[in-house]
Amino acid sequence: MQSTVIAPSILSANFAKLGEEVDNVLNAGADWVHFDVMDNHYVPNLTIGPMVCEALRKHGVTAPIDVHLMVEPVDRIVPDFAKAGATLISFHPEASAHVHRTIQLIKSHGCQAGLVLNPATPVDALEWVLEELDMVLLMSVNPGFGGQSFIPSALEKLRRVRKMIDATGKPIRLEIDGGVKADNIAEIAAAGADTFVAGSAIFNATDYADVIGRMKDAVSKVRG
Amino acid sequence: MQSTVIAPSILSANFAKLGEEVDNVLNAGADWVHFDVMDNHYVPNLTIGPMVCEALRKHGVTAPIDVHLMVEPVDRIVPDFAKAGATLISFHPEASAHVHRTIQLIKSHGCQAGLVLNPATPVDALEWVLEELDMVLLMSVNPGFGGQSFIPSALEKLRRVRKMIDATGKPIRLEIDGGVKADNIAEIAAAGADTFVAGSAIFNATDYADVIGRMKDAVSKVRG
Amino acid sequence: MQSTVIAPSILSANFAKLGEEVDNVLNAGADWVHFDVMDNHYVPNLTIGPMVCEALRKHGVTAPIDVHLMVEPVDRIVPDFAKAGATLISFHPEASAHVHRTIQLIKSHGCQAGLVLNPATPVDALEWVLEELDMVLLMSVNPGFGGQSFIPSALEKLRRVRKMIDATGKPIRLEIDGGVKADNIAEIAAAGADTFVAGSAIFNATDYADVIGRMKDAVSKVRG
Amino acid sequence: MQSTVIAPSILSANFAKLGEEVDNVLNAGADWVHFDVMDNHYVPNLTIGPMVCEALRKHGVTAPIDVHLMVEPVDRIVPDFAKAGATLISFHPEASAHVHRTIQLIKSHGCQAGLVLNPATPVDALEWVLEELDMVLLMSVNPGFGGQSFIPSALEKLRRVRKMIDATGKPIRLEIDGGVKADNIAEIAAAGADTFVAGSAIFNATDYADVIGRMKDAVSKVRG
Amino acid sequence: MQSTVIAPSILSANFAKLGEEVDNVLNAGADWVHFDVMDNHYVPNLTIGPMVCEALRKHGVTAPIDVHLMVEPVDRIVPDFAKAGATLISFHPEASAHVHRTIQLIKSHGCQAGLVLNPATPVDALEWVLEELDMVLLMSVNPGFGGQSFIPSALEKLRRVRKMIDATGKPIRLEIDGGVKADNIAEIAAAGADTFVAGSAIFNATDYADVIGRMKDAVSKVRG
Amino acid sequence: MQSTVIAPSILSANFAKLGEEVDNVLNAGADWVHFDVMDNHYVPNLTIGPMVCEALRKHGVTAPIDVHLMVEPVDRIVPDFAKAGATLISFHPEASAHVHRTIQLIKSHGCQAGLVLNPATPVDALEWVLEELDMVLLMSVNPGFGGQSFIPSALEKLRRVRKMIDATGKPIRLEIDGGVKADNIAEIAAAGADTFVAGSAIFNATDYADVIGRMKDAVSKVRG
Repeated sequence: MQSTVIAPSILSANFAKLGEEVDNVLNAGADWVHFDVMDNHYVPNLTIGPMVCEALRKHGVTAPIDVHLMVEPVDRIVPDFAKAGATLISFHPEASAHVHRTIQLIKSHGCQAGLVLNPATPVDALEWVLEELDMVLLMSVNPGFGGQSFIPSALEKLRRVRKMIDATGKPIRLEIDGGVKADNIAEIAAAGADTFVAGSAIFNATDYADVIGRMKDAVSKVRG
Repeated sequence: MQSTVIAPSILSANFAKLGEEVDNVLNAGADWVHFDVMDNHYVPNLTIGPMVCEALRKHGVTAPIDVHLMVEPVDRIVPDFAKAGATLISFHPEASAHVHRTIQLIKSHGCQAGLVLNPATPVDALEWVLEELDMVLLMSVNPGFGGQSFIPSALEKLRRVRKMIDATGKPIRLEIDGGVKADNIAEIAAAGADTFVAGSAIFNATDYADVIGRMKDAVSKVRG
Repeated sequence: MQSTVIAPSILSANFAKLGEEVDNVLNAGADWVHFDVMDNHYVPNLTIGPMVCEALRKHGVTAPIDVHLMVEPVDRIVPDFAKAGATLISFHPEASAHVHRTIQLIKSHGCQAGLVLNPATPVDALEWVLEELDMVLLMSVNPGFGGQSFIPSALEKLRRVRKMIDATGKPIRLEIDGGVKADNIAEIAAAGADTFVAGSAIFNATDYADVIGRMKDAVSKVRG
Repeated sequence: MQSTVIAPSILSANFAKLGEEVDNVLNAGADWVHFDVMDNHYVPNLTIGPMVCEALRKHGVTAPIDVHLMVEPVDRIVPDFAKAGATLISFHPEASAHVHRTIQLIKSHGCQAGLVLNPATPVDALEWVLEELDMVLLMSVNPGFGGQSFIPSALEKLRRVRKMIDATGKPIRLEIDGGVKADNIAEIAAAGADTFVAGSAIFNATDYADVIGRMKDAVSKVRG
Repeated sequence: MQSTVIAPSILSANFAKLGEEVDNVLNAGADWVHFDVMDNHYVPNLTIGPMVCEALRKHGVTAPIDVHLMVEPVDRIVPDFAKAGATLISFHPEASAHVHRTIQLIKSHGCQAGLVLNPATPVDALEWVLEELDMVLLMSVNPGFGGQSFIPSALEKLRRVRKMIDATGKPIRLEIDGGVKADNIAEIAAAGADTFVAGSAIFNATDYADVIGRMKDAVSKVRG
Repeated sequence: MQSTVIAPSILSANFAKLGEEVDNVLNAGADWVHFDVMDNHYVPNLTIGPMVCEALRKHGVTAPIDVHLMVEPVDRIVPDFAKAGATLISFHPEASAHVHRTIQLIKSHGCQAGLVLNPATPVDALEWVLEELDMVLLMSVNPGFGGQSFIPSALEKLRRVRKMIDATGKPIRLEIDGGVKADNIAEIAAAGADTFVAGSAIFNATDYADVIGRMKDAVSKVRG
C-alpha cells in the first residue's frame, strides 16, 4: 500500500514569502508541495510557472514537488518543469491529443507522470494507460475556479479507480484535489485516496502542524 | 516632461522571497515594480499571474505596479489584474482584435493603459490610439525569450515614437524593455525613453542601490 | 413520468415574421420553442443569437424556450442567453473542457441544464453528471448540416439512456432531435424519448395543428 | 460622386417582426439594409446568419443588403451569404490571412466587396487592395459591444480615406458605422462619408421617416 | 474473413523516386499503399498531401491507396484526397467534432472510411459508428513521432476490437500501424489484425519481396 | 547587384520522380529549387514537408533549396527544415507573433532568412527587420490557391521594396512568386526583382532549358 501523503497546494500560500511558507508547511508535517499551474486557456486563470518551481528548489526545498498542469497544449512546457525541479507532472487527457506520448515525454525527462480526471471525465480515459502512470489525480472540484466544495460523486469515482489500480498490482498513487478538509478526509481516504491535496484548509489555519496532524490522524484510522 | 522611472522586472528576482526582494529594490531607489505576465501561448513561457500581484499589495507594496501582459487574448484577464492591484496594464496589439476597445476596458477598471510594440511591429499601430494611451512600451529584445541583448534599431524606434508622443502634447510615457544596463541607459534616454525596465542588470547586482543610482545618474545627465 | 413535449425548431420557421410563427405553432399545440444556436465554429453554419431570443420574450412568448448551443466554447454566451429569457440551455460535452462546471454555470443563472450527445458520442459522457442534468438531448442527425434523415442507431441509444435516467430516479427529460416526423415518432417514443424536436415536419406543413396533433396522438398511444 | 445612402442596421429592429420592420424603414426612405453578423469569436456576441438574410429576400425585400461580417475566419461563410441574397459583403482584414483572396472570393460569388477598419486599424491596410474594393467601412465605435458613442478620431480617419479613394478615381463608397445620429451626421458627411449606418437612432425613433428625412437633409446640405 | 493485406507506409520510401519505390514494393507482393498525412497541428510533423497522392495515380499506381489523416480539422481536406485518388480515408475521432458526419462525408466522395484509435483512446469511440466503417486502424505507436517500438497493450486492444467487429457480422477491416515487423506479425495477426502497415521494416530491407514474403507467411500460419 | 536567380517551384513537378525532375531542371539552367510548404491551416492546402527536402539532398541535389513556409505557427518547423537541408527559409509575418525572433531562429540554425508579403500586406511589415533579412519575397498571386495570374499591383510593390532594399546598401534579394512567365519576366525584372519563382511555366514546358533560357535572356536585357 502506498504511504499517506499530504500535499498542500501553494496556491493558498502567501506568494510574498513563498520559500518561508513552504518551509513552514513541510516542517509542520506536509509530505509534498502541490504546485498548480494555470495558463488562462485550459482554465480561466493564470497562476505560476517553472521559474517559481525553480526558485523553491534554489531556496532549498527537497520535498517532492507535485506539478498539476492545467494548461493546453501540454508537451511544450514539460521539459521546462522537469528542468525546474518537478518530481511528478500531471496533466489532463482533454489537453493532449496524444496522451500516451505525453506520459512517455514526462518520464523521458526523469519525472513521474500523472493523469488528472475532471469531475465529468469518464474513467475509461485511464483504461489503456493506467499501467504507465505513477499517479491518478481525481478532481473533486472544477479546476481553475475558486470557492467550491467537495463534489460528492467523487467518492464513488475514487472507489472505481481504486479498484482499477488494485487490479494492476502496481504502486500507482490515487490523489484527490478539491474541498479536502480535516473533517471529510477520513471518508475520502476510505473511498481509496492515498494522496491528499489541501489548500485553504491548511494555509488559512493558524497552526499548520495542528491541521496537518488532524488530517493524518483521520487518515491513519482508515488506512492503518 | 515625464519624470524618470526605473522599473525593475521581478522576473529576475528571487520568487522564494518576493516581498523582501521588492521591498529592497524599492528602498534602493526603484520607482515602479515591473510585472511580466506570460501565458505559454503569446510567448513560449508561463510566469506569474494576478495572485502574485495581489500578494505584493497585501505585503504592503504601494509603488506603482506596471503589468506587461504577454498573453492572448487579452480582455478576460484585465479585470483580474485590476482587482489584484495593477496600476498600469500594457498589452500587445497583435494579441487583441479590438485594440481600442481593450484600452477602454483597462481604463474602465481604473488602471492606466499601455501598448507594447515588438521589435518588428510597425509604429503605425499607435497612430489612431496614441492619445488614448498612458504609456508606450517598446521592446528592445523579443519578449518571452531569455539571454538577449539590446537590439540597436530600438534607438531609432524610440526617436520615432518620441516625436509622435511630443506631437500629441500629452503626458504619455515612453518605456523601454530589454537589455537595459547602466552602461547603455544614457544612450537609450537620449533617444527618448523616460521609463526603463531592467531585470538581471539590477537583481543580479550585489548592491541594488548602487546600480539603480548609476542608472539614474546616467539618465539625469541626458534628461536633466 | 415526464409529460410529452413537442418542441418545434424555429430554424424552420419564417424569420421575417418569427413572432407570428411562434404564436401560431404554440396555438397549434406545441409545448416549447426549440432554439438552435450555431456559431460557424462548432458547426459550419451561423444562425441566431440571444437578441432573437430576447425579441421573442418581448413579443410575449411565455412558453419554455429550449436553447441548444452548437457553439464552442460554451461558457461566455451562457449568461447572455439566460438574460435573454432562455428556460433551458443545452450544450455539447466536446465543446467545454469543464462540463461539470458549465452545468453549474447554467444553473447559477437560473436556467435548466441539458447535455447533448452527437450521433457518435459515447453515452459514458453522461456517467458522472447525469444527476446534475435537467435534460439529455440525443442527436439523431448530425447538428449543423441540413437534409438528413433519422439515424436508426439513435433508437438503441435512446433505450440505453432511458435506462440510465430511470436508474437515477430523477425527473430528467430525454429529448430527441433530427428527422422526427409524425410517422416515426411512435417508434422514437417507444425507445424512451419524452421530448421531441421537429423542424420542417411542422413548419413545412400547411396545418401546424394537424401535424402536432398527429404527433401527440402517436406518442400518447405509446406513453399513455 | 457616390449618392448618399442611409443604411439602417437591423440589429436594432424588432426580430419578432423583422420583415415588417424592414419594409417600414425602407418605405420611410432608407436606401439599404445593414446586416451585422457576429460569431462569438471575432467579437463577443452572436447575432444572425444567412438564414435570416434569405428570409428577408423571400419576404420580398429588393433593396441592397449590406452584410458586415464580424466573423473569423471569413471565407467559409461568404458563399452562404451570397446564396442568401447579400448585395455587398464586408470583412475585417484582421480576420483573414489572405485579404486579397477574400475580396476575389466575394466578387466571384457575384457580390460587391468591402473592407472594414476598426478604430485602431491603420489605413495602410487599404493600400494594396483599395482599387479592388466597392466600399470601405470605417468603424466609429468598437464592433460587437453595445452602448458606445461616436469616436471623434474617426473624422480624421474619414478625411484620410476620402483622399485615398479620390486618388483612385474609382466609385468606391465610404461607409461609417457607430454612433451616427441626426445631429452629428452633417459633420460626418463633411469628413467624407457617403454611406451611413444607423441603428438605434432610427429604430428607437417613433417616426422612422422623420429621422431618416432629417439625416438626409443634414447630409444634403454638406454633399449637395 | 477479410483477406490479409500488407500496406507499406511510403513515409519510409525514397521521396526522390517515389513512383519507382511504390512500383517495386507492389511488385514485391505488397497489397496496398499506406499514405501518412501529417499537418504539423494534429501531430508535430508535416509530410505529404493530395498532390503526391495524385502523382502516384498519374504514375500508374492502381493498388488501393490507404490514406491515414493525422490532421485536424478533417473535413476540408477529404474532398481533395478523394479527387486525388484515395481509396480509403481514415481519421482520428479527436480531430473531428462530428465523427459520424465525417464518415458520411468520406463515403459521399466515393471512398471507404476508417477510424483510427491512438494508443490511449478508449474503444467506446467506436461504439455508435462501427457499423458505418470499412476499417478500424489501431495505432501501436504514437502517430507523428519517430523511432518507437510496438506498444504491447495494443495486442489486448486488437482482441477487444476484433470481438466488436465480429459481433457486427460486417466485413470491417482491422488494421494495425506501428512497430510491425516480420518477427512480431504473427502475434499481431493472432490478436485479430488482418491489415498490416509496415514502414522501415520493408523499405529499409534490401529485398522487399523477401520481407513481405516472410510477413505473409507468418500471418498465413495464424489466419490460414 | 545580386545575380539573377531562376527558382522553379517543385509544386509543378512530377512527384513520382522528383529527384529526376529536379536534376533535369537544374541541368536546364535553373539556379535554385523553390520548395512550397503548405499546412492546411495558413493556406487551405497541404503539400510537402521536411522529409521531401531531405530526400532531395540525399539524392544529391547541391543547389540552394529555397523553402517558402505557408504554415502557422512558424517556429516549431524551422529546425526540421534546417536539418533537412534548407538553404533559405521564408515565412509570412502574419504567421508569427514574433517576427524578429523567428528571423533570428532561422539564422541560428544556419539558414538564410526571408520574409514574404502577401498581395495585400503593407510594406511597413519590413521596416524594422529589413536589414536582418537575406531576402524579401513578394507574392504576385495569393499563396495556396491555384490557377491565378500575375496581380498587376505587384509591379508597383516591387519598385517600392527595391528602393527600401537599395537604401540599406545590403545584399538583400528581392524574389517574386506568382504568374511569372517568359513573356512578363522582363517587366518584372525592370520593377526590381532579381529572383524569380516559376512553376507551371517551366514544368509544363516540353523543353525546360528553352523556357529557362528565354527567361534569363529577357531578364539580362533589363538587368545587364
